[in-house]
Amino acid sequence: MITSADVIDLRVPTSDQLLGSDPFHKQPDYSSAVLHLETDAGLRGVSVVFTVGAGTDWVCHGIRDLCQLIIGSDLQDFAAAPIDLYRRLIDHHQLRWLHDGVFRMAAGAVLNAMWDLWAKSLDKPLWKLLVDLEPEFVADCIDWRNIRDALSRDEAVAMLRARRSDVARRESEMNPRGPKAYCTAGWLGLSDDQILATIRKLQTQGFDSFKLKVGQDSDRDVQRIRFMRDAIGPSCNLMVDANQYWGLGEAKRHIERYRPYGLKWIEEPIARDDVLGYVELAETFADADFGFACGEQAASPVIFKQLLKSGAIKYCQIDAVRVAGVNDVMAIILMAAKFGVPVCPHGGGIALCNMIQHYGMWDQIAVAGHSDTQLVEYIDFLQEAVEHPVMTRDGCYVTPTAAGWGLEFLPTFIDQHRFPDGEVWKTRDPTRKGVAFEAVVAPK
Amino acid sequence: MITSADVIDLRVPTSDQLLGSDPFHKQPDYSSAVLHLETDAGLRGVSVVFTVGAGTDWVCHGIRDLCQLIIGSDLQDFAAAPIDLYRRLIDHHQLRWLHDGVFRMAAGAVLNAMWDLWAKSLDKPLWKLLVDLEPEFVADCIDWRNIRDALSRDEAVAMLRARRSDVARRESEMNPRGPKAYCTAGWLGLSDDQILATIRKLQTQGFDSFKLKVGQDSDRDVQRIRFMRDAIGPSCNLMVDANQYWGLGEAKRHIERYRPYGLKWIEEPIARDDVLGYVELAETFADADFGFACGEQAASPVIFKQLLKSGAIKYCQIDAVRVAGVNDVMAIILMAAKFGVPVCPHGGGIALCNMIQHYGMWDQIAVAGHSDTQLVEYIDFLQEAVEHPVMTRDGCYVTPTAAGWGLEFLPTFIDQHRFPDGEVWKTRDPTRKGVAFEAVVAPK
Repeated sequence: MITSADVIDLRVPTSDQLLGSDPFHKQPDYSSAVLHLETDAGLRGVSVVFTVGAGTDWVCHGIRDLCQLIIGSDLQDFAAAPIDLYRRLIDHHQLRWLHDGVFRMAAGAVLNAMWDLWAKSLDKPLWKLLVDLEPEFVADCIDWRNIRDALSRDEAVAMLRARRSDVARRESEMNPRGPKAYCTAGWLGLSDDQILATIRKLQTQGFDSFKLKVGQDSDRDVQRIRFMRDAIGPSCNLMVDANQYWGLGEAKRHIERYRPYGLKWIEEPIARDDVLGYVELAETFADADFGFACGEQAASPVIFKQLLKSGAIKYCQIDAVRVAGVNDVMAIILMAAKFGVPVCPHGGGIALCNMIQHYGMWDQIAVAGHSDTQLVEYIDFLQEAVEHPVMTRDGCYVTPTAAGWGLEFLPTFIDQHRFPDGEVWKTRDPTRKGVAFEAVVAPK
Repeated sequence: MITSADVIDLRVPTSDQLLGSDPFHKQPDYSSAVLHLETDAGLRGVSVVFTVGAGTDWVCHGIRDLCQLIIGSDLQDFAAAPIDLYRRLIDHHQLRWLHDGVFRMAAGAVLNAMWDLWAKSLDKPLWKLLVDLEPEFVADCIDWRNIRDALSRDEAVAMLRARRSDVARRESEMNPRGPKAYCTAGWLGLSDDQILATIRKLQTQGFDSFKLKVGQDSDRDVQRIRFMRDAIGPSCNLMVDANQYWGLGEAKRHIERYRPYGLKWIEEPIARDDVLGYVELAETFADADFGFACGEQAASPVIFKQLLKSGAIKYCQIDAVRVAGVNDVMAIILMAAKFGVPVCPHGGGIALCNMIQHYGMWDQIAVAGHSDTQLVEYIDFLQEAVEHPVMTRDGCYVTPTAAGWGLEFLPTFIDQHRFPDGEVWKTRDPTRKGVAFEAVVAPK
């Protein structure tokens, strides 16, 4: 039984180093709304919602409210039918008015913490719990209402069923060498020298796939793409990420100049919800080497459905904490598999990589069932925050073995970074924290 | 100068009467996050974010956070360039991670209260302030980044400029007879007799356009449509609203049966963000009498852009408090005008009608510049909450004359309905309020 819920506003002043910067998120303070659910059996379920500083308290407020619905509830009831809790949250007849964004993220936090508890109660990593589920059970976790025109329940079951005989072999192939990883080396705030040093360090660790942030200055971006391509050579994967900085026409003009550099993907060229814009871009650049990638900020499975069904994106970037938890992500990964689009999860933040590695495992063992086309984002910072840091070897994730998500934060890290009373924040300049922290240069 | 902000969680137990019920929102308690901004000149700026009970506190939390950015700021600075505050909020480099939903609604509350103050400082109703703005000024209020592929700034200015010579004539035509109104008579929870009584009452008030909630039971819905059509005769407008209850395939099956009844529009047949689904529906029913309508839950101008540019919707249902205030709504109304789609605002809730009448006025005087095709939703309940109730005469809104939005709540109403400590809530069954209030029948 769930006996209590503790919600922690955890913020790290990463803006001091401009780590994670992009054209919109100029000075992010990587943060998390952390949920701890305790049970009478002595288990702790953990989940996070990643944020970039201000606003973490909004998400915490939401999670606290939702947790009232699960205190006193039974883990066994959840495990019998996770869709029931999904519906109680997402289809709550009053709360659903709040839509996606904070509401869906908060609901995802509650669901993900329950999945964590369930996996821990079986002493399995989350990916293993998912891999072991029967196809029908997976299908029953999903809200089909708005997506079945792209993928029906029966199709999903048939897809999973068809892979079943191969799952044991794939599982052993992916242990201990997990999903192939890639890194962002070209953060917006970094100099060429810093980028080069990052690439060289990553190469010694076996990485061959790198990403660069672009967006603001077309000439400078092309220079940086050329610089990155020269630095990594022709055979490595190079991707660029515009973080939605462009309008549609602008995107076309910028991207036209990217054709010669053998890019693998262009990530988030336009607004996260501009489905028809993505369709138009895909048509415009149908003959280019690169495909389009997005999803880290797609607000719901319905947006993914459209991007996948229309063929607009060639890489499906699930996020672990933007949509409503395992249940929504299962639906998205299954739709991607149907349309033959590789799932390349969005990582980084605080502990997102710790979560997405499980989705990569499930996808590559039990859904797509191969590892040829997928790249899972990997960012190495802030791993000092957790008990079970993400590990990579030879450019691949090392298969996680801790029970659940493996998201346990170190108590000292929490104490120091709790907002606003942790050591790191207590003495900080008030204009550099919370909503008062406005970036100096606002985007036009 | 803005000296203080008070945010009030106001909830009305409308679930007792099932007023406002639909297939998803089974027992709504019409609510508002009410924002009061005070100035040193003694003005009070008011805005609301409509909600349906639980979750109002989420929005209040967000508005309180954002208001820290405007305390001490100058109304004149806002009035000089409203886009600056829009960007400070919507493009806040950390908060923007929170997306649409609660974040955009909260930002809209702040913007709308500032617009209210500005109009009050000029002693004009909001519609009059908007009508009097120069075309270039209107264009400068808008964030063009993600919509200029549908409508450019220059096109918008030219459209407004072209209407300029006719504005005085239109303004006098629309005073005191404002935009034509329509009503929902067929709430889901009501019996045929209750519906008939509602229609007859509305007809004596001059209404000739009525809406019916549908969604769950196809046979029953067709019966009710037929009942409504019989009750109002062939020449009145009849619309149906499914509140996103169907998936795409389901929607087609249901709607196919609606062809014979001369419906004007089918509202929200599918999910609010399923743009390609709307495109497919529009193609499927291209030869039907009815067109599709949506927008009351469209999360951003980008969603509207796609629905309008693709021709998927024939009626554009702006909401006054779902997107980021006057600035976003201006953009949407202008896009609708370019694509020849009538703007039929979503009303109801607490005081939404008080706000949308101003948009109807602006659209019909200065943008579309006519009143032939637009219907503005009107719902007559909860007008006892405000100092300046919305008035209708002969089926039209009576042009509002109070300064600003005219959104002043009566202090006694606020005292009684403040959540959770107002008289109405203090003694209420705990299972019937807040997140604990779960509807008995969950949708499947």
